[in-house]
Amino acid sequence: MTYSASVVGGSGFTGGELLRILDGHPEFELAQATSRSKENKTVGHQHPNLRHSDLRFSSPEDLESVDVLFAATPHGVSMEQIDQFQDAAGTVVDLSADFRLDTEAQYDEWYDGHTRPELLEQSEYALPELNRDNLAGADLIASGGCNATATILGLLPLFEHGVLGGDEQIVVDVKVGSSEGGAGGGEASSHPERSGVVRPYAPTGHRHEAEIQQFLGVDVSFTVHAVDMVRGASATCHVFPDGPVSKGDLWGAYRGQYEDEPFVELVAGGGGVYRYPEPKAVAGTNKAEVGFELDPANKRLVVFSAIDNMMKGSAGQAVHAANVALGLEETAGLEFQGLHPVGAP
Amino acid sequence: MTYSASVVGGSGFTGGELLRILDGHPEFELAQATSRSKENKTVGHQHPNLRHSDLRFSSPEDLESVDVLFAATPHGVSMEQIDQFQDAAGTVVDLSADFRLDTEAQYDEWYDGHTRPELLEQSEYALPELNRDNLAGADLIASGGCNATATILGLLPLFEHGVLGGDEQIVVDVKVGSSEGGAGGGEASSHPERSGVVRPYAPTGHRHEAEIQQFLGVDVSFTVHAVDMVRGASATCHVFPDGPVSKGDLWGAYRGQYEDEPFVELVAGGGGVYRYPEPKAVAGTNKAEVGFELDPANKRLVVFSAIDNMMKGSAGQAVHAANVALGLEETAGLEFQGLHPVGAP
Amino acid sequence: MTYSASVVGGSGFTGGELLRILDGHPEFELAQATSRSKENKTVGHQHPNLRHSDLRFSSPEDLESVDVLFAATPHGVSMEQIDQFQDAAGTVVDLSADFRLDTEAQYDEWYDGHTRPELLEQSEYALPELNRDNLAGADLIASGGCNATATILGLLPLFEHGVLGGDEQIVVDVKVGSSEGGAGGGEASSHPERSGVVRPYAPTGHRHEAEIQQFLGVDVSFTVHAVDMVRGASATCHVFPDGPVSKGDLWGAYRGQYEDEPFVELVAGGGGVYRYPEPKAVAGTNKAEVGFELDPANKRLVVFSAIDNMMKGSAGQAVHAANVALGLEETAGLEFQGLHPVGAP
Amino acid sequence: MTYSASVVGGSGFTGGELLRILDGHPEFELAQATSRSKENKTVGHQHPNLRHSDLRFSSPEDLESVDVLFAATPHGVSMEQIDQFQDAAGTVVDLSADFRLDTEAQYDEWYDGHTRPELLEQSEYALPELNRDNLAGADLIASGGCNATATILGLLPLFEHGVLGGDEQIVVDVKVGSSEGGAGGGEASSHPERSGVVRPYAPTGHRHEAEIQQFLGVDVSFTVHAVDMVRGASATCHVFPDGPVSKGDLWGAYRGQYEDEPFVELVAGGGGVYRYPEPKAVAGTNKAEVGFELDPANKRLVVFSAIDNMMKGSAGQAVHAANVALGLEETAGLEFQGLHPVGAP
Repeated sequence: MTYSASVVGGSGFTGGELLRILDGHPEFELAQATSRSKENKTVGHQHPNLRHSDLRFSSPEDLESVDVLFAATPHGVSMEQIDQFQDAAGTVVDLSADFRLDTEAQYDEWYDGHTRPELLEQSEYALPELNRDNLAGADLIASGGCNATATILGLLPLFEHGVLGGDEQIVVDVKVGSSEGGAGGGEASSHPERSGVVRPYAPTGHRHEAEIQQFLGVDVSFTVHAVDMVRGASATCHVFPDGPVSKGDLWGAYRGQYEDEPFVELVAGGGGVYRYPEPKAVAGTNKAEVGFELDPANKRLVVFSAIDNMMKGSAGQAVHAANVALGLEETAGLEFQGLHPVGAP
Repeated sequence: MTYSASVVGGSGFTGGELLRILDGHPEFELAQATSRSKENKTVGHQHPNLRHSDLRFSSPEDLESVDVLFAATPHGVSMEQIDQFQDAAGTVVDLSADFRLDTEAQYDEWYDGHTRPELLEQSEYALPELNRDNLAGADLIASGGCNATATILGLLPLFEHGVLGGDEQIVVDVKVGSSEGGAGGGEASSHPERSGVVRPYAPTGHRHEAEIQQFLGVDVSFTVHAVDMVRGASATCHVFPDGPVSKGDLWGAYRGQYEDEPFVELVAGGGGVYRYPEPKAVAGTNKAEVGFELDPANKRLVVFSAIDNMMKGSAGQAVHAANVALGLEETAGLEFQGLHPVGAP
Repeated sequence: MTYSASVVGGSGFTGGELLRILDGHPEFELAQATSRSKENKTVGHQHPNLRHSDLRFSSPEDLESVDVLFAATPHGVSMEQIDQFQDAAGTVVDLSADFRLDTEAQYDEWYDGHTRPELLEQSEYALPELNRDNLAGADLIASGGCNATATILGLLPLFEHGVLGGDEQIVVDVKVGSSEGGAGGGEASSHPERSGVVRPYAPTGHRHEAEIQQFLGVDVSFTVHAVDMVRGASATCHVFPDGPVSKGDLWGAYRGQYEDEPFVELVAGGGGVYRYPEPKAVAGTNKAEVGFELDPANKRLVVFSAIDNMMKGSAGQAVHAANVALGLEETAGLEFQGLHPVGAP
Repeated sequence: MTYSASVVGGSGFTGGELLRILDGHPEFELAQATSRSKENKTVGHQHPNLRHSDLRFSSPEDLESVDVLFAATPHGVSMEQIDQFQDAAGTVVDLSADFRLDTEAQYDEWYDGHTRPELLEQSEYALPELNRDNLAGADLIASGGCNATATILGLLPLFEHGVLGGDEQIVVDVKVGSSEGGAGGGEASSHPERSGVVRPYAPTGHRHEAEIQQFLGVDVSFTVHAVDMVRGASATCHVFPDGPVSKGDLWGAYRGQYEDEPFVELVAGGGGVYRYPEPKAVAGTNKAEVGFELDPANKRLVVFSAIDNMMKGSAGQAVHAANVALGLEETAGLEFQGLHPVGAP
């Protein structure tokens, strides 16, 4: 059986990534891609990797009935159009921040005024490693924020396996690629200004802290830097456990958490060039690399987590969640293993 | 039916690319990967995109019997070991320059002393767009040089469809990524020296001219520049036809040549950001993008051709040829469509 | 004696480069920088390398009287405001294309309708290597196009010293950085789309052909590619002389032309990593590197020329010309020798 | 009066940077550059920005008598050759780690066995912002580690002005360019492997912690990441003060510390693209940019510090210290203000 799918907002970066995944997905058939600004143009006009496709962008006003609708629209759009989305599809997967948080109070603390707060508790967070059971059969799914996803995947085993209790000091220093800024551009995102940067673009107060707080139950000190790559988010979590922690404890926690996960790879030490998680090792894939190192001199534990922000941090996570929701093979459409070597991904 | 396959020289860049393709190929089962320097290490130790694999490098001295052996060894190695390769496998695909040329005289003009010249005329050039019929059932296949491949794919329709006769002036200005230099490194390939370059690394006398001459029957003025990407080769061919050429002639030639080819995309003008062939649009794929523009003021035709040097220019071409040789679906294992956006690929 | 100077259009890239040079120039005192969009902001707000300066952008409506006015405005602006510029300053150096060509007919062929054609023959082209004698005392100076500058410097000795006659086939394949597109940005210049490209952005018909034609008296087949750097233009000139040319002829021509030039470096072969001209070797400097290689098999001569498009190709050339015009030390303010190693400059 | 100077180890990256600075320094005359591997080659053969120079590398065995000798040799070499260095020059500035620490015990904790421990307390740390008074007249000067320099400059005002007491939790997350790895290269530094990385290369236990501990009297949790640039070190210091800290306190501390410093720029907020310290804004210069942001929700203070690791973090610091030692203008030879825009520096 094949499921029909549509992408609302298909001309943006995450919309294009959804189109790419769905185009190669064995169980989905891509029925519609909408774009107001690129209406009637082929999807390949905007996304050169889709030049082989005949599909043309249609107006977002005319949604076809499909099994699954993926919304890749800016924050605030989905909450306005959620009725149309749900009329069109039994399963809606939203990639914006509109349905990630559980309560209106949380939302208001970090964003501005939710118009459909009653849906917040009905929606399911898309990250299967965190929320697999609730995703089965879900009809409204919220794909997580990329930086939050990297951080949560790095820290989750420590909380789940009792290494941390919740009162510890945690600093998360994130490095991200330019695709996080979206397709719109602007002076700071122009190539001359954005090339080669190590730029503190969200020194404090990044909204993804809200998701981390919601799921890990802990406040983290969060800072995001722009660095010179297009795809990728790398979270380095500096953690100060209350008591002694051994390498064995850590391997136990991480293996216990992730050994059956198809998209999490543990990378901690060993030889060779790639000893710790790196975003370029997972570029284009739905994988997260997670690893750690102990710093006994400073009673510190350093956790590294690397993802492709457009995949595990957005479109890939969304499709993975849809696979779970519909009972498909979890890895369907997400089998790409990445490239070596590869440049700034 | 599944075919067993091995990769000799699996720790290098093209060897790793072969391992990646074969790992995901529906008809091949990867039986062996050899590496003298990395013997007993997992393939994922060298190639982080293969961390999910249990395969370990074995010694090149102990070749297993397989259906297809891919040799990704430095120039000169395969001609020495061809007997062992052919003992081990009914089909041998060599990625070096050892068997690309047809005659000993040609070889001696560009390289140094062939030890098995009698095999030169028995081997088949791997490029299906050029040599599909002869590849069926071939037992010794020579994968082409990346810069030659890009150039041949760009110019071939002009000769096949009578736009050029063979006496025209042709300048080919190629831009390539750092993976062409292989995994070995060296001062000129170190990141501080190689970053951001536009470096004439083969101003004249590049050996790939030999392949171009052999297949197109024409001498081209060939210059190769290193630019800042890891994967990719882009050939800009400045051609001076004897008489007038129209856009219609060109579309006729290129469509006539390539309309049924699964791996060649015509890209010539139109709007949007991606109007002509670009290597980053095909990074990680086995596609070639080919396009052109007329310059009536200078009676010039400019042809652009872009490939991933590690794929269409090497490992992907090799697997494509093996698919043809064994009668498999041509695109098997080579379905990846590439990413958008992507950085320096 | 110190000369007062102003920069009209100081918030753009070349305007900022002028500010940087003038700020460190021993003979100029920077009196004014104008910017309509950044009026009243400090120059360091726009150009972080000028944070030490107290200067603020003023309105372009209120020009102060100065000795030299540099206009770094978009094409078409200077011809409209030239009277105000000349009222404000005895010496005007324009960085746009408005006064580069000699005749209205030439201008109309490549651009659209000149409003002050009578000034075309009065203005002097800024390149001292080409036009030093006429620059002395000049009151209207037109700084050349960056790609034209690189090309002219590469080919000039061949015409001046009789290696070429003017009827030869010449292909010029240029690779440029993203700063050529200016500070404005746009989708094609956004970091995600512009990173890692080898993009044919002006396959044919580039306007700089006009300048080359004007000064070398020859039509060249000209193609410009965008590559991944911010600063830099590299011109590879494929030249087909009518008769035999020796290395000695070439060294004679190039040394004869450039041995006393303070800003031209001959780089042709030898060992080490940097054997031919490279833009990253001259990034931030006013230098041009020029070199060549013979290709006897194809009766071809390959000439390489590399500059920083913002310096020798624009702001540096402008200041150099002003130094000549005023009788100053030619290298004044332009002494920076560049960095090694350096990334994508 | 002019001082003669020599550079021992002139073919490496920091050696080349010293040559560049001294070549343009108004008070120094470069008498000798040594290199064992490049003996008799011109300095421009190795460093293309020095092609205008006639100087050739000489053997390190034959040191000329000079006023100041700069040693840019690998760790461990200077302690072996310090007698020859001091015989040759009244002032020796060493760029290795050999003389940075004060005691043998400290040295042994982080390095292996000092052969001349009695010199440790005689040497002076080169950072004038920290140690100006002791540098005057010093005859043995140790240029600091780049990552330590960035960190110390970021945190120093907090300790000097009572914002921190010394018991606070401090995490320092550093991002560095590839030139830190030196000219030698190796697989991890090759362009294909090093491009586009966010690579935790020193997750814990980095030796520069020793210098930070020595000068700030505090242990910091230190992690270094390799990112895609050639030059630059950016330190993000996550600090948790015991009590409340206001923006006013911070501006007071930072202005109080640095307002008269010629090479420290405070960059904290404001508008535009460059709101916080960034290494590309100081590439090629001896400047440090320092800034901060408060995170009241997490009772955190985030300090940013950015330098060019080859300049303020090495060769520039060394020349600055020599200027101080000899009573010269502090900024002599170090006036370059950097470029805008610039790519990956």
